[in-house]
Amino acid sequence: MYFHAQRYINEIAADEPDPAAANALQEGLGGQFGEMRTMMQYLFQSINFRGAAAKPYRDLIQGIGTEEISHVELIGTTISRLLDGSPRYTGKLTDPLDTPGAGGATPLKIALDESNIHHYLVGAQGALPVDAVGNPWSGSYVYNSGNLPLDLLYNLMLESTGRLQKCRIYEMTDNKTARSTVAYLIVRDQAHENAYAKALESLGVDWNKLLPIPKTNAEQFPEVKELLDLGLQSKQYSFDLEGKSEAGRIFQGMSPSKDGTDLDATEQAPEGVPSTISPERLEEFSPGLDADLMELIQATAEMELADVEAMFGPVAKK
Amino acid sequence: MYFHAQRYINEIAADEPDPAAANALQEGLGGQFGEMRTMMQYLFQSINFRGAAAKPYRDLIQGIGTEEISHVELIGTTISRLLDGSPRYTGKLTDPLDTPGAGGATPLKIALDESNIHHYLVGAQGALPVDAVGNPWSGSYVYNSGNLPLDLLYNLMLESTGRLQKCRIYEMTDNKTARSTVAYLIVRDQAHENAYAKALESLGVDWNKLLPIPKTNAEQFPEVKELLDLGLQSKQYSFDLEGKSEAGRIFQGMSPSKDGTDLDATEQAPEGVPSTISPERLEEFSPGLDADLMELIQATAEMELADVEAMFGPVAKK
Amino acid sequence: MYFHAQRYINEIAADEPDPAAANALQEGLGGQFGEMRTMMQYLFQSINFRGAAAKPYRDLIQGIGTEEISHVELIGTTISRLLDGSPRYTGKLTDPLDTPGAGGATPLKIALDESNIHHYLVGAQGALPVDAVGNPWSGSYVYNSGNLPLDLLYNLMLESTGRLQKCRIYEMTDNKTARSTVAYLIVRDQAHENAYAKALESLGVDWNKLLPIPKTNAEQFPEVKELLDLGLQSKQYSFDLEGKSEAGRIFQGMSPSKDGTDLDATEQAPEGVPSTISPERLEEFSPGLDADLMELIQATAEMELADVEAMFGPVAKK
Amino acid sequence: MYFHAQRYINEIAADEPDPAAANALQEGLGGQFGEMRTMMQYLFQSINFRGAAAKPYRDLIQGIGTEEISHVELIGTTISRLLDGSPRYTGKLTDPLDTPGAGGATPLKIALDESNIHHYLVGAQGALPVDAVGNPWSGSYVYNSGNLPLDLLYNLMLESTGRLQKCRIYEMTDNKTARSTVAYLIVRDQAHENAYAKALESLGVDWNKLLPIPKTNAEQFPEVKELLDLGLQSKQYSFDLEGKSEAGRIFQGMSPSKDGTDLDATEQAPEGVPSTISPERLEEFSPGLDADLMELIQATAEMELADVEAMFGPVAKK
Amino acid sequence: MYFHAQRYINEIAADEPDPAAANALQEGLGGQFGEMRTMMQYLFQSINFRGAAAKPYRDLIQGIGTEEISHVELIGTTISRLLDGSPRYTGKLTDPLDTPGAGGATPLKIALDESNIHHYLVGAQGALPVDAVGNPWSGSYVYNSGNLPLDLLYNLMLESTGRLQKCRIYEMTDNKTARSTVAYLIVRDQAHENAYAKALESLGVDWNKLLPIPKTNAEQFPEVKELLDLGLQSKQYSFDLEGKSEAGRIFQGMSPSKDGTDLDATEQAPEGVPSTISPERLEEFSPGLDADLMELIQATAEMELADVEAMFGPVAKK
Amino acid sequence: MYFHAQRYINEIAADEPDPAAANALQEGLGGQFGEMRTMMQYLFQSINFRGAAAKPYRDLIQGIGTEEISHVELIGTTISRLLDGSPRYTGKLTDPLDTPGAGGATPLKIALDESNIHHYLVGAQGALPVDAVGNPWSGSYVYNSGNLPLDLLYNLMLESTGRLQKCRIYEMTDNKTARSTVAYLIVRDQAHENAYAKALESLGVDWNKLLPIPKTNAEQFPEVKELLDLGLQSKQYSFDLEGKSEAGRIFQGMSPSKDGTDLDATEQAPEGVPSTISPERLEEFSPGLDADLMELIQATAEMELADVEAMFGPVAKK
Repeated sequence: MYFHAQRYINEIAADEPDPAAANALQEGLGGQFGEMRTMMQYLFQSINFRGAAAKPYRDLIQGIGTEEISHVELIGTTISRLLDGSPRYTGKLTDPLDTPGAGGATPLKIALDESNIHHYLVGAQGALPVDAVGNPWSGSYVYNSGNLPLDLLYNLMLESTGRLQKCRIYEMTDNKTARSTVAYLIVRDQAHENAYAKALESLGVDWNKLLPIPKTNAEQFPEVKELLDLGLQSKQYSFDLEGKSEAGRIFQGMSPSKDGTDLDATEQAPEGVPSTISPERLEEFSPGLDADLMELIQATAEMELADVEAMFGPVAKK
Repeated sequence: MYFHAQRYINEIAADEPDPAAANALQEGLGGQFGEMRTMMQYLFQSINFRGAAAKPYRDLIQGIGTEEISHVELIGTTISRLLDGSPRYTGKLTDPLDTPGAGGATPLKIALDESNIHHYLVGAQGALPVDAVGNPWSGSYVYNSGNLPLDLLYNLMLESTGRLQKCRIYEMTDNKTARSTVAYLIVRDQAHENAYAKALESLGVDWNKLLPIPKTNAEQFPEVKELLDLGLQSKQYSFDLEGKSEAGRIFQGMSPSKDGTDLDATEQAPEGVPSTISPERLEEFSPGLDADLMELIQATAEMELADVEAMFGPVAKK
Repeated sequence: MYFHAQRYINEIAADEPDPAAANALQEGLGGQFGEMRTMMQYLFQSINFRGAAAKPYRDLIQGIGTEEISHVELIGTTISRLLDGSPRYTGKLTDPLDTPGAGGATPLKIALDESNIHHYLVGAQGALPVDAVGNPWSGSYVYNSGNLPLDLLYNLMLESTGRLQKCRIYEMTDNKTARSTVAYLIVRDQAHENAYAKALESLGVDWNKLLPIPKTNAEQFPEVKELLDLGLQSKQYSFDLEGKSEAGRIFQGMSPSKDGTDLDATEQAPEGVPSTISPERLEEFSPGLDADLMELIQATAEMELADVEAMFGPVAKK
Repeated sequence: MYFHAQRYINEIAADEPDPAAANALQEGLGGQFGEMRTMMQYLFQSINFRGAAAKPYRDLIQGIGTEEISHVELIGTTISRLLDGSPRYTGKLTDPLDTPGAGGATPLKIALDESNIHHYLVGAQGALPVDAVGNPWSGSYVYNSGNLPLDLLYNLMLESTGRLQKCRIYEMTDNKTARSTVAYLIVRDQAHENAYAKALESLGVDWNKLLPIPKTNAEQFPEVKELLDLGLQSKQYSFDLEGKSEAGRIFQGMSPSKDGTDLDATEQAPEGVPSTISPERLEEFSPGLDADLMELIQATAEMELADVEAMFGPVAKK
Repeated sequence: MYFHAQRYINEIAADEPDPAAANALQEGLGGQFGEMRTMMQYLFQSINFRGAAAKPYRDLIQGIGTEEISHVELIGTTISRLLDGSPRYTGKLTDPLDTPGAGGATPLKIALDESNIHHYLVGAQGALPVDAVGNPWSGSYVYNSGNLPLDLLYNLMLESTGRLQKCRIYEMTDNKTARSTVAYLIVRDQAHENAYAKALESLGVDWNKLLPIPKTNAEQFPEVKELLDLGLQSKQYSFDLEGKSEAGRIFQGMSPSKDGTDLDATEQAPEGVPSTISPERLEEFSPGLDADLMELIQATAEMELADVEAMFGPVAKK
Repeated sequence: MYFHAQRYINEIAADEPDPAAANALQEGLGGQFGEMRTMMQYLFQSINFRGAAAKPYRDLIQGIGTEEISHVELIGTTISRLLDGSPRYTGKLTDPLDTPGAGGATPLKIALDESNIHHYLVGAQGALPVDAVGNPWSGSYVYNSGNLPLDLLYNLMLESTGRLQKCRIYEMTDNKTARSTVAYLIVRDQAHENAYAKALESLGVDWNKLLPIPKTNAEQFPEVKELLDLGLQSKQYSFDLEGKSEAGRIFQGMSPSKDGTDLDATEQAPEGVPSTISPERLEEFSPGLDADLMELIQATAEMELADVEAMFGPVAKK
């Protein structure tokens, strides 16, 4: 059973809208080696897991899988923020909003010039379940052979490829919103690389100096360095509400990346930051409430408030 | 941010393996109107939601979306149980297990005769992210127009279609394992129908006697009736760990299904039942540990136990 | 602009339900070389056609394209009839219909044993836009290079392949419902082969004795022979309401199949037979009207009737 | 059975070529909520319809479905016109046309810079059966549950989403060719919204002030306003050649959009405008006739003319 | 540049037709982890390879890639043989062959009952580029990150998964035709596992006792044992016509499977067996030559023979 | 069985990097009518071929199919060269390479502006198995009806369409690297057109003046003219190592293109040019070897060299 808190797993830095960067990040969300893929792959591997004696491996996979849902939420929100307001229409955006062609251009002209027109046409300046060339995510990506060493080997390769692609995305843009999330995911992918590499170590493999893959100087990227200094590449949260995860039996001891750190699986979850809601975008007819509907929503809220105050007394307004 | 508890959201009844029923249930997992779809659709709608004034709608969608992850876990596990052990090989299943052709047939002969050979060939008698004819789940299923009334209308239609298909699956099989989960999901889909219908009521629509869709006598199915008697069709959990969900502002008052109940969103989550791990299946090379690897796993476990006992004293063995 | 008459282009023979035959026919509807493909390919070739001097070629393609829409209607209806009532549930089918498990089996048990479970689970014993292994029809099938000789060559190959596949389907089943439509389409595909072959003749090609493809004794199939005796393989209708089609400039003279007939494009359309509506299927919740909704529909109908009678006097009831 | 007239359902305004606008319109043709989808969905719903008592609903769906074929023709032709001539090659376009690189650029250089290179490489400056990011149309889009209220609810959502996307496309471009067709389809989608909303009203729903969706000021777009003033949002044609459609039993009375108009289903079809054929495009090898083949076509035409004149006397040349 | 010899890479044992086994083998041909995938993946990795210093790794991948083309040929031919003649029509198969329904059944009735109807309907009892549930092979399967350790890790996982699936297929059928090819591919997949594992060893990894994956007793399958006794799991051919491959710098020394053998890359290619051509199948209209066409083919052959004999004297007939 | 030589089938001219041209060429590699398609289609047609009497047709298809593998290698390498080095990063590319943002831009900024971001993000400036809009290659492209005349007709159409698309690509770019390969493939496609047209001639068809398709002045493109003057459009290599191909029985006599040449199938293969390996690209982490791994590779090479010299004496260094 899954639960939710209205918090993002990491902070997203503020910067200008940047739809090209948003589109590059789509690979990290809906691409073959993105967060939707890891989330679903580990969910299926947990559901179909066999062998009670191997429970610590199941719990390791399940814990990482739970984290990946929060990663989907994080990178999806980052894409949404990079798109939000990007049309920068120079005409007058009032209600009625859609005076055609005011200001010498049309309100959504940008959609014709950017990487994925669907960001404006199918979605409303928000994230989509597709990769950076617009291919929809596919269930055929999910790998779950049912053979433990093979599943672990695949997961190691998957996390390494995700990290490789995010390093490349980092080199494509210097937008701070994009880089803050990309840097965080580079480090967390490395933590997951360590997790699967360690699990394979427990089955006999010695990685010598091969890890992490890719061998990169990503540790010199400022945003990455900051997180490495905090040791985030060697930490694995359980996200387990009842303390039953045995993942710590594997995720412990010297890091297979040989970076001098020890693996640590004792924390339940990071603190995170409060989540927010994006503003309305009239040019997208989003959320699409006219004056009448707004009134209905407002009325509902006030009636509810009245009920609450009737029972508990005056409420401090937000 | 998401969390997990090692519990299933509902109990799964025991019965014989039944791969044909398992395959029918795949539609409810990986089909166009299955649980992976609702889970992803509501996750994206929550991420991309616009308009702070409409927060109760966002929270309603997000809460249902969180429940859907547990539904994926529930129906995936149900499929896995229906497949587990289905080959019923009459030869001797020992180690070495794979004496070819012993007992007059081959260990996985069943795979050639059943609905989806991938259940035995690609997976190891486990659930797959595909529908009942083997199409992989696709990101193109996700609908998130960014227009609130449209998104709500789609969600209502989506839940109703999911419920329609599950009623049809109920009529395809009398396997108790399959029916216990199908019945639970029929009732929960109706709760979600009520949620989206009520949200549209708050925007002005009067449904009269149209709901629930489909008009069916599903309430006379014994497994369904039991859950309706508990009022599960009129209850919505928040799954919110910090009590910040405002979904209750919408999910309250008379049910739009006009069944005489009132909607109730005050509980955080159902109790659920402890989750379990399936046995090894040697004929699938799953989990694929030979004696050497088993020994390594055992050693790891014992070493860990020794550490624990050194610190805290003797531990009661499971 | 397109118009419709409530008539099928050919009669569909009556026989027992046969879901396996229905599934084979799906290839002729939604397969890569089926009627949806020819319909869409010719529609796009007509829309994008270039060169006013070549108008007779455009009109030939457009006329055949219009016929293909009626073929989609014909083969879709045939599939629907082959599926309708196929569950043959031995329990009591009353209202409330869905007494679970009555009669020792479940009402839709058949769905687990037949070729495409979606015929019962996603559709309601009706045709689907998929091929015989369940692949959805794809826009990538459509060929429209814009080079006239190439488009004609492709169309010739397409019709021949369609005819080849229908000859194979004929050999898979002896269900009369299936064979009546398959035989009709074999002959009409041959007419279209002749049309494109003749168009290429007008550009210089001499086919000698290569046509028709496949060389087959299909002409000895009784249902086919009957239609050949009527000369349906050498006739092309215009389906043009205003008599502006110039297709007859090409579709004339000796048949390229060298069967002794002359091509004839003088008729507007065949007579066809009146279309019908299938009965309700309660076990599919189709059309899904309960007593209340039925009453509303009835009321609407009666009120309408009253209006009509008020104006025009008594109406003879159907 | 279907028929055709060589007329477009609405006039297409003239303007400059605009391949970016053409690509945006592809969503309206081959997108998940475009005209190919509505056309196919209603065709399948008509074929598989159940329940003779509900014939007016079948006829309503069938009539709208027939109109959608003309919409495919209209938007496809619009895209073709927006692409036609867009390369604007500055070199000498003669026969032999393809002197490479004349004029300092290559004849199809534009293909590398525009939204969908397939418009020049796979097609010949013509419409394709794909959406605005190049995904081919898929049969998996078609929804036909067989449950009447659900199918109506889906159709209402489908038309509303189509209209929402076309409003967004309107805001992306001010090309007159594009806007004339987009405006027409915005209004016709609203008519179809009204049709399905009214059908649901007849089953009990009261929409209050929710319709139309999206709430927009599209009525202030000049091209849209002109059509609304003609009442095109409240009119539904039957396209039925034999007057057997009973759709008017539903499509009557006050518009569910509450815009003060009454619904009217008494006309068979709009007048439309004569269709045309695009010019040859040598740089695309389209139609690909060289001098020899041109001569053959000409000869065919003249021979035909001679026959006609022999029978009927001199013919006035076009 | 590639060359061909009219020889299969291994002998295919004779046995009865078996379409269910043929379908299981489709996974090994067109599945996500089948031979088309390895062939294409290694071809792309060779084409895009970077780093002259790493040429031995390129040559290793290229050599294995070349072998995979022969594997596609081998398993495709095996599937074709398993399908060939499977209809076993009890009617009279004469020319004219297609007397409908003779013998109490129809000639291709089997197609309705077997795993993939396309084997009879789209193909003519031959192999298809699809997997065992009918999904067409996809270019999205190909992995080529451009990072050498990652590509090697993926290839190791890919070969191991291919071998796991073939072990499962072995357990599904005891047909000798199927098993002879499956056994050969199990052993060759192990050789390729060894190749990629050894390449990773050269980069520092120590696999200890993890290999081969899956740990299985496949070595006890009689057909497999025979090949292992010949050491085929430790041999890698170059298939290089000019002796320029440096793969032997890696594929040497102790096998990473620790089975006591040494790796050997000194041979160019196995001997193979002469390839053959399947008989005509009239019920499939394959090859579709009627008497006239046969005569033309024969005439061509004889004329050619006459020419040859005119120049070189009498030729011994086959 | 297949073999390889480390040679490209034709020389690739040197020019500047040009990612837009690279993307256009992707259609010729992974498009529906590209080289992967012809390669796979002819491979399947060879494997499934029926009828020993028709062996020359099989051998013709098999020989062309073998050539297509070399075409995949050629066009893939051409794409790789057009991409290689295209980022032209103005910052300092040293080791550590990835100083973020040095030089005022980011190292892979170009990826956001070019046709297919996957060329930099998923691949490492290398060819991908996709078409020019990023659709992955699909097995559903392969046509193999098993009816000989139909398969030949399709192949003729396929080669003509491939040639048409390459003529259009030629007109899109004047990059010499791109044009050298495109021109070569235009001429070889024409040779294959001739092959299939001649095969159909042997079955009775007279093409008159229809060929080649498209009628074009491609023969005036300088790079094409050069190859036509060498007669490459009328030559077909066997690629057969044992001289058993009988394709020459068909590919002989007057060319069906009526260009005054005779067809000639006497050569085994063209000479080709030695293949090369691309340089490392640090900004792509490709091949991803850090100093440690480089050292390991170097050590392996030297140890190997020592062994060789110990046995055979001093070796001349490259």
